[in-house]
Amino acid sequence: MTVRSRFFTETEGQAVGVENAAAKGDVVLVCEHASATIPEKLGTLGLSPDVLSSHAAWDPGALAVARLLSQKLDATLVHQRFSRLVYDCNRPPESPSAMPVKSEIYNIPGNLDLSEAERFARTSALYVPFHDRVSGIIAERQDRGRKVVVVTIHSFTPVYHGQFREVQIGILHDTDSRLADAMLVGAEGSALTVKRNDPYGPEDGVTHTLRLHALPDGLLNVMIEIRNDLIANEGDQSAIADFLHELMGKALSSIDE
Amino acid sequence: MTVRSRFFTETEGQAVGVENAAAKGDVVLVCEHASATIPEKLGTLGLSPDVLSSHAAWDPGALAVARLLSQKLDATLVHQRFSRLVYDCNRPPESPSAMPVKSEIYNIPGNLDLSEAERFARTSALYVPFHDRVSGIIAERQDRGRKVVVVTIHSFTPVYHGQFREVQIGILHDTDSRLADAMLVGAEGSALTVKRNDPYGPEDGVTHTLRLHALPDGLLNVMIEIRNDLIANEGDQSAIADFLHELMGKALSSIDE
Repeated sequence: MTVRSRFFTETEGQAVGVENAAAKGDVVLVCEHASATIPEKLGTLGLSPDVLSSHAAWDPGALAVARLLSQKLDATLVHQRFSRLVYDCNRPPESPSAMPVKSEIYNIPGNLDLSEAERFARTSALYVPFHDRVSGIIAERQDRGRKVVVVTIHSFTPVYHGQFREVQIGILHDTDSRLADAMLVGAEGSALTVKRNDPYGPEDGVTHTLRLHALPDGLLNVMIEIRNDLIANEGDQSAIADFLHELMGKALSSIDE
Repeated sequence: MTVRSRFFTETEGQAVGVENAAAKGDVVLVCEHASATIPEKLGTLGLSPDVLSSHAAWDPGALAVARLLSQKLDATLVHQRFSRLVYDCNRPPESPSAMPVKSEIYNIPGNLDLSEAERFARTSALYVPFHDRVSGIIAERQDRGRKVVVVTIHSFTPVYHGQFREVQIGILHDTDSRLADAMLVGAEGSALTVKRNDPYGPEDGVTHTLRLHALPDGLLNVMIEIRNDLIANEGDQSAIADFLHELMGKALSSIDE
């Protein structure tokens, strides 16, 4: 019996979702904020249904786009099955944002004064198995001599702290900008407003997954942020997935490794 | 394949040692600082052999005493098989002491500027499986209606930052002092200098294991600190184990739960 197994109910299963595990493509897709689900044993975290379905709890549309890309790229997809309000898997345990007491304008009562045991349960049930799985998938491919490209898929709210955001697609990177650079070149002249490290960048601590899984071994990588009003329905999700698929394909074929 | 399995060599095995797993006694013994071993892949952390065998790397004598107590009390013993310089399992990941850059007077070069990936590997390979195991052992007993008492065994150096320490046995507790109180009463008039929350106390962050495993469910608990010059050889270890066994036995039988 593990902390993880007692954190969830039997029907909830476990934290990590893996799709297209046997994919042949080079890309491994990661979606840390795929779900707004709160584990039953944690109730509502003291939040209203509005907040629990808002961008504070998850990245709306991100999983849908990631799934489309997983098919188009023949890419394995790893996604977190529970809300980032419980544990934000794009943050290390030492970050105050890992189990946030505030998200944008919302206080999170259920995250106030967490005990060390509660923090351990979340780290152990949500964070460690998630990144352990991503790491294992990448390592197995490396062991078989396969190329690996790490791509994380996120969405952001069009209005943040009352300010409207012009950017529609953010191409984010940390110290290794090869794939991001190539995608930004490819996006020039497109109908969409595509920007580098916007609305977030590595200084906001959002490149944790890239730092864990791509930078140590020098794997090509990028983090994609999509403004969530552009992926609110299936048709739009499909259009954005097509756009990103083409952009990524051209970028990857332009990079001589 | 997991991060944990790649952190260690095949011969090193894994982080958690469990002894006397089928024990019938109420006590679960925990020894977080049992070992001075550094995983091969981390080399020497830039330290001299002197430092690597000193109290900075482990609690000398603590595992030996814990093993004797495990036999005397018929208690399951969980111990960490690697040095606290790699990960101090009595600290949460957010504590600067979890992967210390300095220990007393020693700088730890191998812990400077750890990347997020290196921190994740240590948290995932050493900390989480250790406390997951302790937690699982306790939960299984609780499920069978068994009483559980959590006792952690530590040792401390007689001279710290140049100051000699008078205290010989420290009886430490967090907010639940029932067992510690009873042991301190029992120790009155003994030949040893036994003190409460000395040389450390909860304000030093040393009660993490108690906070994880005993306080949430109100289990009787205590942390025992033994001055390491009193347990430097087998005869002395045996004498101290006898002393603690008697003290703990009397204390436990005096507490009406």
